[in-house]
Amino acid sequence: MSADPRFHPAAGPYPLSRLAEAAGAELAGDAARMLNGVAPLDSAGAGEVAFLDGRKHLASLKASRAGAVVLPPDLAASVPEGCAAMLSRTPHLAFARIAALFHPPRAPVPGIHPTATVAADAVLGEGCDIGPHAVIGAGAVLGARCLVGPHAVIGPGCVFGDDCRILAHAAASFCLAGHRVTLHQGARVGQEGFGFTPTPEGRFVTIPQLGRVRLGDEVEIGANSCVDRGALDDTVLGPGTRLDNLVQIGHNVVTGRGCVIVAQVGISGSTRLGDFVTIAGQAGLTGHLNIGSKARIGAQAGVQSDVPAGQDVTGSPAMPVKDALRAAIYLRQLGARKARSAAGPAREEQKEPPSGRSEQTD
Amino acid sequence: MSADPRFHPAAGPYPLSRLAEAAGAELAGDAARMLNGVAPLDSAGAGEVAFLDGRKHLASLKASRAGAVVLPPDLAASVPEGCAAMLSRTPHLAFARIAALFHPPRAPVPGIHPTATVAADAVLGEGCDIGPHAVIGAGAVLGARCLVGPHAVIGPGCVFGDDCRILAHAAASFCLAGHRVTLHQGARVGQEGFGFTPTPEGRFVTIPQLGRVRLGDEVEIGANSCVDRGALDDTVLGPGTRLDNLVQIGHNVVTGRGCVIVAQVGISGSTRLGDFVTIAGQAGLTGHLNIGSKARIGAQAGVQSDVPAGQDVTGSPAMPVKDALRAAIYLRQLGARKARSAAGPAREEQKEPPSGRSEQTD
Amino acid sequence: MSADPRFHPAAGPYPLSRLAEAAGAELAGDAARMLNGVAPLDSAGAGEVAFLDGRKHLASLKASRAGAVVLPPDLAASVPEGCAAMLSRTPHLAFARIAALFHPPRAPVPGIHPTATVAADAVLGEGCDIGPHAVIGAGAVLGARCLVGPHAVIGPGCVFGDDCRILAHAAASFCLAGHRVTLHQGARVGQEGFGFTPTPEGRFVTIPQLGRVRLGDEVEIGANSCVDRGALDDTVLGPGTRLDNLVQIGHNVVTGRGCVIVAQVGISGSTRLGDFVTIAGQAGLTGHLNIGSKARIGAQAGVQSDVPAGQDVTGSPAMPVKDALRAAIYLRQLGARKARSAAGPAREEQKEPPSGRSEQTD
Repeated sequence: MSADPRFHPAAGPYPLSRLAEAAGAELAGDAARMLNGVAPLDSAGAGEVAFLDGRKHLASLKASRAGAVVLPPDLAASVPEGCAAMLSRTPHLAFARIAALFHPPRAPVPGIHPTATVAADAVLGEGCDIGPHAVIGAGAVLGARCLVGPHAVIGPGCVFGDDCRILAHAAASFCLAGHRVTLHQGARVGQEGFGFTPTPEGRFVTIPQLGRVRLGDEVEIGANSCVDRGALDDTVLGPGTRLDNLVQIGHNVVTGRGCVIVAQVGISGSTRLGDFVTIAGQAGLTGHLNIGSKARIGAQAGVQSDVPAGQDVTGSPAMPVKDALRAAIYLRQLGARKARSAAGPAREEQKEPPSGRSEQTD
Repeated sequence: MSADPRFHPAAGPYPLSRLAEAAGAELAGDAARMLNGVAPLDSAGAGEVAFLDGRKHLASLKASRAGAVVLPPDLAASVPEGCAAMLSRTPHLAFARIAALFHPPRAPVPGIHPTATVAADAVLGEGCDIGPHAVIGAGAVLGARCLVGPHAVIGPGCVFGDDCRILAHAAASFCLAGHRVTLHQGARVGQEGFGFTPTPEGRFVTIPQLGRVRLGDEVEIGANSCVDRGALDDTVLGPGTRLDNLVQIGHNVVTGRGCVIVAQVGISGSTRLGDFVTIAGQAGLTGHLNIGSKARIGAQAGVQSDVPAGQDVTGSPAMPVKDALRAAIYLRQLGARKARSAAGPAREEQKEPPSGRSEQTD
Repeated sequence: MSADPRFHPAAGPYPLSRLAEAAGAELAGDAARMLNGVAPLDSAGAGEVAFLDGRKHLASLKASRAGAVVLPPDLAASVPEGCAAMLSRTPHLAFARIAALFHPPRAPVPGIHPTATVAADAVLGEGCDIGPHAVIGAGAVLGARCLVGPHAVIGPGCVFGDDCRILAHAAASFCLAGHRVTLHQGARVGQEGFGFTPTPEGRFVTIPQLGRVRLGDEVEIGANSCVDRGALDDTVLGPGTRLDNLVQIGHNVVTGRGCVIVAQVGISGSTRLGDFVTIAGQAGLTGHLNIGSKARIGAQAGVQSDVPAGQDVTGSPAMPVKDALRAAIYLRQLGARKARSAAGPAREEQKEPPSGRSEQTD
């Protein structure tokens, strides 16, 4: 099933030659064949392009009726009769480029919606698209061709480079951003972090949070994710770093370039990441840590100490992946064979997963 | 204490006979007695209806001054003198129906607020209630009696059936929804998922996300939860499936009917759930898994492999609940008695829970 | 580097005597010296005030060129020549007061933005600042000097005391709040909780949620956090309690005063916290628990049973911290030395952290 034209209208059609060129792929097929769009391998038709990453779906490839397939060179022989092959050592990247040709990103429609509130001294670059009920504060600066979605709020003094997207309901404050930065729906950048200190009487006094957030070029912040501004120095996300949805970045976190932070991860204040660190879903990092470049942190890990560059850790507390795996296997075997302790009934009763049915009498 | 009339005005009063009928319960008491509302068992008065699920709160029942109580037949003998009993094998369901009689859900007030922005070619069913600053995009279609709250955004081409609620600050895009679907406050449905691929130079190229989100009848998405649209095929939540708050649903997740997904759960892309799967709070599932119907996944579980239908798993990595329980007991006993290793000071220092007090000198 | 004046304009300058007085600190230095602002210890200049918490950063202190430093009395001797010292047993609190003198919190600018929608019978105290596109519902009451940010929504009947801040995109409904309460960006308070019950046929029927949310004085709710209203009785957060970002509070949770709930914590319905309970990041608590005053719950803990006052627990399932530490050490040693089981290949393969690259063929 190809993309629903109501939501994803397709440009084109394009000849195979054009697609192969955009993809940087070597074409084995009729260069003049016209293709209309992209589709999954198992449902693509004669006018569509699919792709294959590796051997795992070889059966689907052989059964496919796609007009063309992007795939690694070593699988070329498995392409069905009549299907054109575009060979690439990075087939997913090649496919992304082809898909983008059929479905270019939505271009900003220059203009300011009449319901938007734009401060008189805000500076908007040429071609900006400011949507309904958007709010752009005093002295804010947007580069060229920025897309500001419905209800988005850009606070006073914020600066964004060219080709940024601040999507519906996103809020940015105390923020300096480069080019091609995206804040997805409901993202929150620059708000006051969790900084306070107790008085002797037990009241909490807020510590003024006097830093900012700096987002490098091509940073993306996922839907409903939060990036707190710094306490004194800044919170910084390096160029290309991407946050998935529902991520929490505490004050004064600093990352290098190209970090990948998956959904629901939490990074406590002042922790520093090198370049190309990957953190899998729901992992948590305590504060003031150093995570070296290209370290990989597993899903649900609980990281409480520094991680050297290039190391893979997982578990809570986190440990090298190989160790964690062995420990998990051992624990599982233990659970599978150990009889209940003679010490008496289990105290940790595993509560049943809630079914939404309250067990109260009220 | 019954419901605050400033927030929850009560319809009625109603005679017991009417309540018992609505509840599908067998009445043991004066059918003509008038009741005014509902209240918790331990604070209900003579004009109020309470309920009891099971034996756990029997003491509260005996002390209760409620005018009527809904409860299972086997507890009928414990009802205090003067208190009418409505007997039901599903007392909580019966109580829900009675409560809804006193407090019917807020009906939409037909009309479009003057500050709302509704595209000229959007189609609104009869009786729709479009609130302040709501935005309804080009070609969107809403069924009858839909309630769209303040600042809600319904993107171009979206389709909703009848009696849907898209509450304050919710955002839907690339979305096809059935009837009686609810998006709670700040829910995000249909946004671009976390799909990108690296170039050889280490830049990330976004993979166009060309699918949609399909929500079956009676699906509910909790506050600030996120449901990403599919990469090519759709992300699908089956009829009756309910998500609690702060849940993350990755691209191309597919669920059957009646799944229950508790707060802060994360499900990675392309994982499939059968029918009536229950996932307890903060659990995480990796991608491309198959979770069979009626499987139950425990709180904070880390599911990394398929779960057969009807199985209960918990732990991280997840394992059958019985095994996880035994492993946890063993681990706990180990912690309670094992002396510190002679290998030297503990390397995993349990960091103190943060108190909001920064330990920096800045 | 001191605070960016574009975002954090500084009041002052002030003489040291004034700062010491505000800080409640003992001054050792020239009372007439003028200071301009605050900065981190390692970058502060002659016109700036820094602070030091303890010995950890003594080296930075000795190298510092700050004009004045706030620090504990026992470190006074380490203050560099020419740097004035302000001695305090609570240096972070003292510093917070000095920072607030230079950077007082943004005062509300009295007035109602022309794009705001305020119900005719809403009552606004003197000096309220109602921002663009804010919505204040029928019968809502705000005390004096409340700040309501862009797109914030205050539902019908809600009551807030004086000096509250309901920041951009926050939504409050069914809510009674005291003085100096803050809802940060995108916070959701008062929405319908996750309450429903199954019919025999497997449909879910919503249980009307007829309670409210009550927020004591000085409660703060972090960005994108969710606090569900009660099912019958109320959900209550005691005075001074602070929630970080992306926290989930289920219906009928009740806390005492001064609780600290760090990012991404989830507390299930009807669980009760005493006073000054601290819950570290990403911890989860099941429902109907009692957590005693001053208990401390560790990061990522899974609490399934009551915690006595003053106890520290961590792990999942949670256990006393000392026990958890020992168990973790043991597990780690196990992983580091145990050879792969002769039982065969590991079944729990640790999936690689996702890199955003889909492994599908579509």
